[in-house]
Amino acid sequence: MIIPTSNAAKHVGPAPTAAQTRVIAAALELFSRNGVGGTSLQMIADEIGVTKAAVYYQYKTKDEIVLAAAEAELARVADVVHVAEAESSPKRAREAALTGIVDLAVARRRSVGTILSDPVIGRLFAQHRAFRDVMHRLRKLLFGEESGSEARLRTAILVAAISGAVMHPFAVDLDDDVLRSELLRLARRFLGLPK
Amino acid sequence: MIIPTSNAAKHVGPAPTAAQTRVIAAALELFSRNGVGGTSLQMIADEIGVTKAAVYYQYKTKDEIVLAAAEAELARVADVVHVAEAESSPKRAREAALTGIVDLAVARRRSVGTILSDPVIGRLFAQHRAFRDVMHRLRKLLFGEESGSEARLRTAILVAAISGAVMHPFAVDLDDDVLRSELLRLARRFLGLPK
Repeated sequence: MIIPTSNAAKHVGPAPTAAQTRVIAAALELFSRNGVGGTSLQMIADEIGVTKAAVYYQYKTKDEIVLAAAEAELARVADVVHVAEAESSPKRAREAALTGIVDLAVARRRSVGTILSDPVIGRLFAQHRAFRDVMHRLRKLLFGEESGSEARLRTAILVAAISGAVMHPFAVDLDDDVLRSELLRLARRFLGLPK
Repeated sequence: MIIPTSNAAKHVGPAPTAAQTRVIAAALELFSRNGVGGTSLQMIADEIGVTKAAVYYQYKTKDEIVLAAAEAELARVADVVHVAEAESSPKRAREAALTGIVDLAVARRRSVGTILSDPVIGRLFAQHRAFRDVMHRLRKLLFGEESGSEARLRTAILVAAISGAVMHPFAVDLDDDVLRSELLRLARRFLGLPK
């Protein structure tokens, strides 16, 4: 299972500091319990055990925290891509990308639904340079170097289906292993791969 | 395209009144612009052009509105199932269920992401009697009468993947027609159907 987290942001933008990482982790935990709207900067401060001023020193608004959390998730996808690109053959690279994306989605299922479905994030992602870069590299891993615009959209659909499935209420009572094997099956069949 | 909305709630619970339907519609519109957290009862009242007291007369809290909106979405799925069950052969019924689910997900892509990913909704759906009933009927449509627990989980995965994909930021810049045809392709391949 490939879920690198250290140094994740190097592929996306400036890495969050240790203090910022603590704020993001606490925010994600509270978002998943209470929703984004039900979480305040004060609650985030209480969760970490610092003052509200200390949180405010890192991020001025909750929107900034939501955006930083979304960028951290994108950095995790970038890490999966980075690891897959280092594989010794195109076939192994595709396999590493597929299992990496599924493992990441399943591992993050409880925590990221609330931020990824935030309407602000959806609009930001579409124009995000780092997002376009990650999707471009992922497309090449899944469909090969010469793949065109159809492969681009199928990559988006596949990642959206995998990541969207884990955060949907219809899948909330499925356990991690079941979810992982079925999503891999879905991905393989979509790509026309054996097994 | 099958998206019946009238009388939708008869399959799920007491139908919302006309006034409640207006509140739900306004709330969904505001949730999709501002998120659940960025929407107040006062904003919902302003959107409809009534007083806050008039909204409060229908629903006491925003949570009640989120739940009512989620139930209304579930009723739309129940309608798709209901229409498919009336088809003249199992094959036509499966086809109607598949295209109905995809059409519904694409039609609702802008409005329902915020409520469906609300953590409260995920927990509620898993125990919801109406949810279990709809999933059971959908499973029979997609996998046949004798299908067992594996078909149950594949139904959940497939619906979650389709509905989750449309609300994921990775799919936000894809147009409706592309999204519809690719999700149908995904569903057919997952189910091992031709074309």
